[in-house]
Amino acid sequence: MSGAAPLDVVADFPAIPVGWAYLDTAATSQKPQPVIDAIARGYAETYATVHRGVYQRSADMTLAYEAARRKVATFIGGNPDEIVFVRGATEGINLVAASWAAQQLRPGDRILLSQLEHHSNIVPWQVAAERTGAAIDVVPLTPDGRIDLEAMAAMLTPQHKLVALAHVSNVLGSVLDARAATELAHGVGAKILIDGCQAVPRLPVDVAAIGCDFYVFSGHKLYGPTGIGVLWGRAELLEAMPPYQTGGSMIDRVSFAQTTYAPAPTRFEAGTPHIVGALGLAAAIDYVETIGLDRIHEHETALVRQARAALGRINSVRLFGPDDAAGIVSFAVEGVHPHDVGTILDEGQVAIRAGHHCAQPLMDVLDVPATARASFGVYNGPGDIERLVAGIERVSRIFG
Amino acid sequence: MSGAAPLDVVADFPAIPVGWAYLDTAATSQKPQPVIDAIARGYAETYATVHRGVYQRSADMTLAYEAARRKVATFIGGNPDEIVFVRGATEGINLVAASWAAQQLRPGDRILLSQLEHHSNIVPWQVAAERTGAAIDVVPLTPDGRIDLEAMAAMLTPQHKLVALAHVSNVLGSVLDARAATELAHGVGAKILIDGCQAVPRLPVDVAAIGCDFYVFSGHKLYGPTGIGVLWGRAELLEAMPPYQTGGSMIDRVSFAQTTYAPAPTRFEAGTPHIVGALGLAAAIDYVETIGLDRIHEHETALVRQARAALGRINSVRLFGPDDAAGIVSFAVEGVHPHDVGTILDEGQVAIRAGHHCAQPLMDVLDVPATARASFGVYNGPGDIERLVAGIERVSRIFG
Repeated sequence: MSGAAPLDVVADFPAIPVGWAYLDTAATSQKPQPVIDAIARGYAETYATVHRGVYQRSADMTLAYEAARRKVATFIGGNPDEIVFVRGATEGINLVAASWAAQQLRPGDRILLSQLEHHSNIVPWQVAAERTGAAIDVVPLTPDGRIDLEAMAAMLTPQHKLVALAHVSNVLGSVLDARAATELAHGVGAKILIDGCQAVPRLPVDVAAIGCDFYVFSGHKLYGPTGIGVLWGRAELLEAMPPYQTGGSMIDRVSFAQTTYAPAPTRFEAGTPHIVGALGLAAAIDYVETIGLDRIHEHETALVRQARAALGRINSVRLFGPDDAAGIVSFAVEGVHPHDVGTILDEGQVAIRAGHHCAQPLMDVLDVPATARASFGVYNGPGDIERLVAGIERVSRIFG
Repeated sequence: MSGAAPLDVVADFPAIPVGWAYLDTAATSQKPQPVIDAIARGYAETYATVHRGVYQRSADMTLAYEAARRKVATFIGGNPDEIVFVRGATEGINLVAASWAAQQLRPGDRILLSQLEHHSNIVPWQVAAERTGAAIDVVPLTPDGRIDLEAMAAMLTPQHKLVALAHVSNVLGSVLDARAATELAHGVGAKILIDGCQAVPRLPVDVAAIGCDFYVFSGHKLYGPTGIGVLWGRAELLEAMPPYQTGGSMIDRVSFAQTTYAPAPTRFEAGTPHIVGALGLAAAIDYVETIGLDRIHEHETALVRQARAALGRINSVRLFGPDDAAGIVSFAVEGVHPHDVGTILDEGQVAIRAGHHCAQPLMDVLDVPATARASFGVYNGPGDIERLVAGIERVSRIFG
């Protein structure tokens, strides 16, 4: 079907039975055995708290936790001191909105988002705007579903203090030229946050090459555990930001008269962290790096091409997004609610997502209440696409 | 040594090798095999996202996630709608401080804490007080290290809108009469939050019987996974509180014109939750309930009595806290820094914690820079105490 050889790694994923086409990786990815093993080992062999113990086991666990931080930093081209472990991308954005934006934004300032953002990259800015008196502008999309950088260039003003954009759309799979977007933002003196949830598992990411100011992603979408994610922030920005959550570990000295805080990233990690989550995330990074993000990107792009070509031949199917989308295809079947599409596919052992995908404003732009979405991972192959297409043909027959 | 039969469950804990006395359970507990298995199964067999999928696997995982919420609710005597999954107790307190307190407190209002609180139950209130113009008062301790309820009664005024107290001190092990404290707080119209981190693993907790308004605890201290914890809040309070973190899942409808929010507890769980963390926490609750919290409490109280009696016979040891402490003993060895105590004990395969235990104000009250702390769990037995005492005798000889 495509020029790229399938990765053929599905055997690494114990939760994917033979014959099940798992096509909901944009919601969450399945876990390879090395990640599951790293998590089990963290609890069953090496478990201890971090940063506090005076005994060897705790010192070792602290080293492992900080090694995970270094691995994340290297993976995305940042420095370890710029890596804050959070619950997921949602918390990373909330942290920047509550700390940086609440401190920096003033009435009259403006925030620039796009029409395709996930709710997690909209609502925190609405809350920040309401608190600070800032206003929000929304970049429109090109006809094929990309953030329109020409429109963005025309909209940006010196009043814009922050731009926040998805690197890869979770609905359309369209890929942002993050470096070009960063140059535009910096051209008016705005900072830029990139939501990398769908990008980090799908293509090589280098925050230094992009030049952005903040970058967030979730571990569970990168073949890692739930409950862990990453906020990367430029060192000088993080260092100047007030704390977000407060409590143990993030302080320098506490008294009822006055409390002082630790430097970043410690300042932003209050309480006992998700220790084993960090170890699992490190194992997930090892896993994808062994395959190679370039290969993963080529693999998923080929699956998208295969899917779009085959679905496009079905008369009742309407495809959304660009042909070169990264691992994600949204579509509608004429006259059939996407939930019914999903339910019928499920009967044939094909798991997709149907709904607004936490992107209701984009649904309004597409003028649909919901879409059906197939999203791919390293474990998918051409056979999964064939099952998807056969399922959609069945949907068309049932409702045709 | 004591009347209670040892629990003798250490074989359930694969990360505790024979001969290792793990006495840092107040920092984090080791994990029994059923919890590790539940986590591995969550990733290796049943993994899917929750609340969104139109396929069977995701519907099943949603049921399991919500069953975990019901299990937590039953475990502490609350209702499922009152259970918010958070990263840990620290986040639970931050959530109440940022949402409830920021909405409710006014200049002139007062918050009542105690001298023995963990930083996580101090600093969020300092931040809330600074933001709202409220002031903080601090209840002193009795000579044996309990929160002094008589002093508290004398301090409370109608200006006090919130009381926040530890159920069990993480340094001294002293147990609060949470019901009496609640009655005092309610007597002046104040709400009360109980930090149950050290209580939930150590004694039966029933929030309905206590009558409190908020209760928080961490999963990793209850033999469960890292990165998951619980905020319980009275339904009518949670329902009236504004969101904390915002993003996917917690919304009703998002548009750039206006966003509306889901009811509690969904409103407080933005983004993909720590799904497998919730499953692991449910398994941990099953584990401790099979043993029985009454038995665990009796077991740990007996270990405390044994430890205090034996350590008390060493001339250079100063014991802190009450004799009936719940599973935790803090002490100092005359002329020896607690870190040196910890290091020497570690050489003899005894793991304790030395430091301020995230309770610097309490260190000021005790007039020490740090303490050595031994804290017990279900896996400890009289032999662990004997090793601890032998280690302290060695410390005394080395420095004597």
